[in-house]
Amino acid sequence: MSDAPAFDAGFRERLAELFAWRRDVRRFRTDPVDPALVDTLIETASLAPSVGLSQPWRFVTVDTPARRAAIRAAFADSNAAALAAQPDARAAAYAALKLAGLDAAPVHIAVLVEPDPAQGHGLGRTTMPETVGYSAVLAIHTLWLAARAAGLGLGWVSILEPERVCAILDVPADWRLVGYLCLGWPAAETVTPELETAGWEHRRPASVVRR
Amino acid sequence: MSDAPAFDAGFRERLAELFAWRRDVRRFRTDPVDPALVDTLIETASLAPSVGLSQPWRFVTVDTPARRAAIRAAFADSNAAALAAQPDARAAAYAALKLAGLDAAPVHIAVLVEPDPAQGHGLGRTTMPETVGYSAVLAIHTLWLAARAAGLGLGWVSILEPERVCAILDVPADWRLVGYLCLGWPAAETVTPELETAGWEHRRPASVVRR
Repeated sequence: MSDAPAFDAGFRERLAELFAWRRDVRRFRTDPVDPALVDTLIETASLAPSVGLSQPWRFVTVDTPARRAAIRAAFADSNAAALAAQPDARAAAYAALKLAGLDAAPVHIAVLVEPDPAQGHGLGRTTMPETVGYSAVLAIHTLWLAARAAGLGLGWVSILEPERVCAILDVPADWRLVGYLCLGWPAAETVTPELETAGWEHRRPASVVRR
Repeated sequence: MSDAPAFDAGFRERLAELFAWRRDVRRFRTDPVDPALVDTLIETASLAPSVGLSQPWRFVTVDTPARRAAIRAAFADSNAAALAAQPDARAAAYAALKLAGLDAAPVHIAVLVEPDPAQGHGLGRTTMPETVGYSAVLAIHTLWLAARAAGLGLGWVSILEPERVCAILDVPADWRLVGYLCLGWPAAETVTPELETAGWEHRRPASVVRR
């Protein structure tokens, strides 16, 4: 089509900066985020690719104090279990990490997936049914990048029992948790992952296997 | 940090266009892609988020004619099985779809995952081990967007038996296929998904459940 956008070198440079400066944020300011901006981010996320055009992602905003407290308790339990399972040599380092911003983040969004959606008529997922969950991951990443471009930070909390989260959220029985997201204005911006700053792990250069 | 980039409204508008015009491409021109550009895209993909900073993605370029032929045969078999499983009312529509660009795409990249990587020290994946595969999905999406910004098209082929692909690629026994990607210059650019143009499925607006 003749109206296709041509992305220029300047845009590509800024996009590279976006990829480099997107962080998993665990330290948020508590000032609110305009609900209209959150809705816009979710609409943008719905442009993500999905297997068979099934759009199987389900966005659940977690708004009530009681549900947020239950999620924090679920995280505390799973994180305590993970700490208890650390080898002695790493336990102190693990205990010192801040792994979620559930306390301060003004917006909580749980992203779930409907594993067997009617939309899409099953196309593309016979041999790899995991592509349904993958579609929700693609929506999360779209939301993440759009949020960062708006100056917002996002943190993906995976230290949660998915079934417990689904029970707290009272969602349809077949929905599965893909990611629990904290969203808000970041307390700081950095190009270095917090796990790297804390000395937990460092990034490695890309490598390619040629076949 | 004081050198954090500030993304402006102009960038956000172009980013929204990128999300809107990113397509799953199945029709490619056959002219080559500079290998240095492919390497740059894979480096960019390695900036993706990963659980516990584990970077569990494994990129395999599929270069030899014999391996590409084996992949095409694997797709043909899985696609024939999927066609045979269609309800009568949709079989003709399914048969008319072009679901992969394996024939013309000048670059094939298989993205696999190492399911239990040492890197990251297991952080963040005790309760949700699927986040390891999700990390590879995030790398694929990063590559996809960077490719589109460079004028390239990408198609994700999921109509493949993952174990058969791993055998063809002769990769370590524990690696699992996440996505098989075709990359090249698109024959056309469109804002509408091919499955929508073909009448297979149409996109729905985003909806949000509030809890």
